[in-house]
Amino acid sequence: MKIYGHPMSTCTRKVLMTLAEKGHSAEVVLVDIMKGEQKGAAHLARQPFGVIPVLEDDDYRLYESRAIIRYLDARLPGPALTPSNLGDRGRMEQWISIEMSCFTQPAVQLIRQLLFGRAAGLEPNQQVVAEAQAEVERALDVADQTLATQPYLAGDMFTLAEVCWMPYLEYLFPCGLGEVVLGREHVGAWWRGISARPTWQRVAAR
Amino acid sequence: MKIYGHPMSTCTRKVLMTLAEKGHSAEVVLVDIMKGEQKGAAHLARQPFGVIPVLEDDDYRLYESRAIIRYLDARLPGPALTPSNLGDRGRMEQWISIEMSCFTQPAVQLIRQLLFGRAAGLEPNQQVVAEAQAEVERALDVADQTLATQPYLAGDMFTLAEVCWMPYLEYLFPCGLGEVVLGREHVGAWWRGISARPTWQRVAAR
Repeated sequence: MKIYGHPMSTCTRKVLMTLAEKGHSAEVVLVDIMKGEQKGAAHLARQPFGVIPVLEDDDYRLYESRAIIRYLDARLPGPALTPSNLGDRGRMEQWISIEMSCFTQPAVQLIRQLLFGRAAGLEPNQQVVAEAQAEVERALDVADQTLATQPYLAGDMFTLAEVCWMPYLEYLFPCGLGEVVLGREHVGAWWRGISARPTWQRVAAR
Repeated sequence: MKIYGHPMSTCTRKVLMTLAEKGHSAEVVLVDIMKGEQKGAAHLARQPFGVIPVLEDDDYRLYESRAIIRYLDARLPGPALTPSNLGDRGRMEQWISIEMSCFTQPAVQLIRQLLFGRAAGLEPNQQVVAEAQAEVERALDVADQTLATQPYLAGDMFTLAEVCWMPYLEYLFPCGLGEVVLGREHVGAWWRGISARPTWQRVAAR
């Protein structure tokens, strides 16, 4: 298997974390997003929207990280990352969908404004930051209520829902927003547990 | 089963179409989005983000339409809307994810500007319309390439991927953008086929 991606990309990290949890590795072919290679002809032939990652499994090619991780979980041996019972599987899908609908867009705005923008010498737009932070906090408040009664988003097990949330949460820390995560009792305990997994330590250290 | 939603809402329609395809019906409890009821205390107790729909299946409650439709497909008898083979299932997930990542946001902008905005007497913002239309057309170009070689987004069968795209495509027509759909050879033929399904005729007529 090959993953066309970049080790700092949130969507590539979902795929790398899934592989790590399954005890599997794949060749990572670097698409240098710092140089805009994802918009070049070679990558557009693999991924017509010009984004990463892309999976190649022999002659099967798949893109969209949340599709790739579901495929890998079903395709590979190793611990299941999807609950077998219908109710918990519904909850996993709910939390993956909340990630896309309510959390990721404002989280990415914060990361752009407070991390990459600052690194480029740009002043953050305080109104954009305030609005995005309020949305992120609202999503984490709902997660906190869920995690008050169960250890993981879908119930009793670590699932693809955690895999989808982790890359964005990780980047809130270098934004100076770690307290938004750790300051919530149940989200904080959950994050301390899942981010200490040796699999995540390897993925986030790249 | 109960669905808290509104028959004109795109996300409620995904759930109603799934139920129709499974040959099942559920009680629809109207949440009047025209009056803002989705932001009222009664609905927020069901759905903390203040959006619709919500499913109640006895004492199990689930929100986020794309989670609900996967749950219903697995939960109910009737024709499967998810491929049993791994490769096609991956494709289905890819197209559901493209819908969320690349298509729905610009499609909703077009619907707001060209349908609901106009109905409220507002002039469309032509720059917003032009940018959103370009994004919608790009997504449909990619779909057209896929549908040139297979009858449905995931392969040989009608799946939840179609269910996710249909409500937005339907609303492009009263926006005056039907040609964006029908003018593409393979997307046009696919849309004519899936929108003629008696199940969709019932859902879209509500």
